Amino acid sequence: MASSSDAEPPAAPTTTLRASSMGRLTDVDPRDTPGFDGYKSDGKALLKERGELLAALQERLYAHGRSGDRRSILLVLQGMDTSGKGGIVRHVVGMVDPQGVSHATFGKPTEDELAHDFLWRIRAKLPTPGQIGVFDRSHYEDVLAVRVHDLVPEQEWQKRYDVINEFERELAAEGTTVIKAMLHISPDEQRERLTKRLNRPDKYWKYNPSDIDERAFWSAYQEAYQVVLDRTDNDDAPWYVIPADRKWFARLSITELLIEALEALDLEWPEPDFDVEHEKKRLAES
Amino acid sequence: MASSSDAEPPAAPTTTLRASSMGRLTDVDPRDTPGFDGYKSDGKALLKERGELLAALQERLYAHGRSGDRRSILLVLQGMDTSGKGGIVRHVVGMVDPQGVSHATFGKPTEDELAHDFLWRIRAKLPTPGQIGVFDRSHYEDVLAVRVHDLVPEQEWQKRYDVINEFERELAAEGTTVIKAMLHISPDEQRERLTKRLNRPDKYWKYNPSDIDERAFWSAYQEAYQVVLDRTDNDDAPWYVIPADRKWFARLSITELLIEALEALDLEWPEPDFDVEHEKKRLAES
Repeated sequence: MASSSDAEPPAAPTTTLRASSMGRLTDVDPRDTPGFDGYKSDGKALLKERGELLAALQERLYAHGRSGDRRSILLVLQGMDTSGKGGIVRHVVGMVDPQGVSHATFGKPTEDELAHDFLWRIRAKLPTPGQIGVFDRSHYEDVLAVRVHDLVPEQEWQKRYDVINEFERELAAEGTTVIKAMLHISPDEQRERLTKRLNRPDKYWKYNPSDIDERAFWSAYQEAYQVVLDRTDNDDAPWYVIPADRKWFARLSITELLIEALEALDLEWPEPDFDVEHEKKRLAES
Repeated sequence: MASSSDAEPPAAPTTTLRASSMGRLTDVDPRDTPGFDGYKSDGKALLKERGELLAALQERLYAHGRSGDRRSILLVLQGMDTSGKGGIVRHVVGMVDPQGVSHATFGKPTEDELAHDFLWRIRAKLPTPGQIGVFDRSHYEDVLAVRVHDLVPEQEWQKRYDVINEFERELAAEGTTVIKAMLHISPDEQRERLTKRLNRPDKYWKYNPSDIDERAFWSAYQEAYQVVLDRTDNDDAPWYVIPADRKWFARLSITELLIEALEALDLEWPEPDFDVEHEKKRLAES
């Protein structure tokens, strides 16, 4: 395929963007583009090109799922309001076949959900074999919003970090590659994005007055995120910190993380579980 | 937008392709392109163009769903093996934002599903407000495969047509636009498509020896489909017969049916339920 850009894809994102290599959140510049030295136009062109590879790899994962392979991928998206979680779903996940995707959004829990363990609604939406599951928010809200707003007693949420690690270890053991991405934006960038929503009638529906209430808790959220990164980043279910003030960089980075995860599964086309020549003969006679 | 094709989209597909206008299934040529006089290249170029309109309309439906509007769309795809249901999901549904799509495949029922009413698993997968739901096979298998293979006593499946009509009337009353599409292929085209699956190692996974067993029941299936069209095509939940030997025509037709359905909902951007100027002020101070 002819490249429409001379820039190389971000180098080794699983290393470069890994939470443990990124240092403290407060030291990460949300406008940075670690591992990538191209411009916005390069990034956009690359996204399209790499999207074709992503779609091709995803089809193999799906084929394996249909052939008895239990493996799957789970992409967990976290970030402040307007950090671009929805845009990742639309512009990155949207590049692959919808048949192989399961997408779930986790909002404020319903009464029914609150009556259960906090992982109950999460387990119900896990990807099936061969799928890429995408969580727009997740069980991490139960140690983020819940912690920031004291929604349950501290002794309860304090236990959840270990419970989450255990849960994700279980997922990994069952063949799910877990990719956790924190989309890191600056408060100024958020103000700009909210302003845009208030200036355009076709964006009003994305705006919620509570978004501004939440801005008052910015540093509490950053601290809560830092604790999440400190306590739940591990090799079974790594956290990545994605500088996200530049949407194109965040989208390209997630694409690369997905590509790396799929390539690591080393997916050849599944072997047939039938006799090809025999079937050709049956078909010709049918 | 500059048109990359001089051909017009298929004219009035909701009229032209409606089961009642198409006549008996046995008289429908699966290679026909009703309402469209362009070539394959025109059809493919149009699909891309019209996909942009589809995505724009879908975003409005999604915005309404987020703003309290209960309406949704349900696309039911039925057809023989290889008729192109998966291709519709990939190439048509794949053109819109995955956030607004819920996709479900209904295979052979599980024990748990069989222990319930046949609509139980269907109800569980209905689109939520603002979504486009896509069913790859559906409750119609319960009067198709079930009828052809005598999987339940006749007196039981005979009742299901009325039950289905009642169910779909209920969906329509609750604001779901139901679009039912039967992808109509010829046995020869099916043989070609199966041959391709047997000739290409990257397609083996799509092949199932039982596909050939099912070919022996071709006319029984056509008769069962004809009864479905005769008994369950109504204005609340119309059936469309899509000649599908030409994949590009089937994809373009479904795109047009979705566009017509969305345009009929007359979706302006939702009005804000907050005071825009007041929020701008709050934001500036935040």
